[in-house]
Amino acid sequence: MKKPYELYYWPMLPGRGEFVRLVLEEAGAPYVDVARLPEEEGGGLEPLLQLVRGERPGQPAYAPPILLHGDFVLAQSAAICAYLGERHGLAPDEPGKRMQALQLQLTIADVSDEAHNTHHPISAALYYEDQKDAAREASKSFVDQRLPRFLPYFERVLERSAGEWLMGASLTYPDLSLFQLAEGLAYAFPKGFARVAESTPLILGLRDRVATRPRIAAYLASDRRLPFNEHGVFRHYPELDLRD
Amino acid sequence: MKKPYELYYWPMLPGRGEFVRLVLEEAGAPYVDVARLPEEEGGGLEPLLQLVRGERPGQPAYAPPILLHGDFVLAQSAAICAYLGERHGLAPDEPGKRMQALQLQLTIADVSDEAHNTHHPISAALYYEDQKDAAREASKSFVDQRLPRFLPYFERVLERSAGEWLMGASLTYPDLSLFQLAEGLAYAFPKGFARVAESTPLILGLRDRVATRPRIAAYLASDRRLPFNEHGVFRHYPELDLRD
Repeated sequence: MKKPYELYYWPMLPGRGEFVRLVLEEAGAPYVDVARLPEEEGGGLEPLLQLVRGERPGQPAYAPPILLHGDFVLAQSAAICAYLGERHGLAPDEPGKRMQALQLQLTIADVSDEAHNTHHPISAALYYEDQKDAAREASKSFVDQRLPRFLPYFERVLERSAGEWLMGASLTYPDLSLFQLAEGLAYAFPKGFARVAESTPLILGLRDRVATRPRIAAYLASDRRLPFNEHGVFRHYPELDLRD
Repeated sequence: MKKPYELYYWPMLPGRGEFVRLVLEEAGAPYVDVARLPEEEGGGLEPLLQLVRGERPGQPAYAPPILLHGDFVLAQSAAICAYLGERHGLAPDEPGKRMQALQLQLTIADVSDEAHNTHHPISAALYYEDQKDAAREASKSFVDQRLPRFLPYFERVLERSAGEWLMGASLTYPDLSLFQLAEGLAYAFPKGFARVAESTPLILGLRDRVATRPRIAAYLASDRRLPFNEHGVFRHYPELDLRD
């Protein structure tokens, strides 16, 4: 008896939920993307908001993405990816390497958070339109100073790896997240990403290998995959990209 | 043969390194705080910078804190705390609960990152003095909207816990980090923290119980404990606290 996982995430954007979806898809694990179901089928935002308000049993979750597995409740995308990765053969077995995979995931999450900060430097509670000046400054720093450090870092990890994936010969969950990060950065900052990616061929190779894995390719071609848009972490505002 | 752990972190501030130090201290684990040693004894910043520049073997680390354990290299404070917690009986055994402890740690890290963002909203690469206007706006949002959500969240976790600690009857590593978070917020935002803490007695109780554990009390009284100051995550700039 295999209970399907329940994923709770904002239905209109890929955001941090996408890191989780990619692990579920690569694992071939049955899951329900609850907030994207019609309300008549128990979907919509209300069940998600009940979780966030602490109205359901189990350890409280601060924010989506939230995974339910039977009565078990888990939030934080990196923790969920690690949990799923370990259960489905997408994480190293050895305890030290398990933590190094987590380290990579957390660094990917940091880049993702900084990308979000470029359009919401003052507060996630305000609209982009109300913090555009600060966003221009924040994105300049991100594109000019942070991206040229972050991407070469992951390139170095791949150079040192004993195999073609971040943790060696086998794909693990941070590989899926690095794919998503590269896709998101290329969407949000096409010029800034292209400039740095010239010198990170191993990241581009990994991105392409992930995209062509059978389950991921099927997922990307399906309507389960949400396109990037201007509601999520990676937003394309041309004024925030590399300036000429 | 017990090799001591080596911790690499900026020597002049508690910052994210402090979450790691508290686990090492509570565990009674032998460790060397490398960058705080004199250069003649192999300390100072150079060994840390060599790690960050990828000039030493092992998986590259993006940024401090970095833990070395023999040849094993691990960065990211939450991953290091989890690694040490699991090795020293300061983490749950059961895989699901192990991930829930990590979830709490990551949420504490999020609050800590947002606290850092109040004085560096535009970029960590610029001085506070060059982003003071944005910092005033960012801190207003943090104090008025984020703190009153974050602290009650941890209070709710404690209310639901089967014991006096976040994960139940036994202290685990996120309890030590919640202590540090409460101390840091009270230092940085004395008025803003006091206003919210009135309704979070369980957090205050946990903070006091951590402070009086024998090893932690000895640590806090020692010169190994770095005081908060205006170089770290939690900085006291009165203009960023709750306004009257």
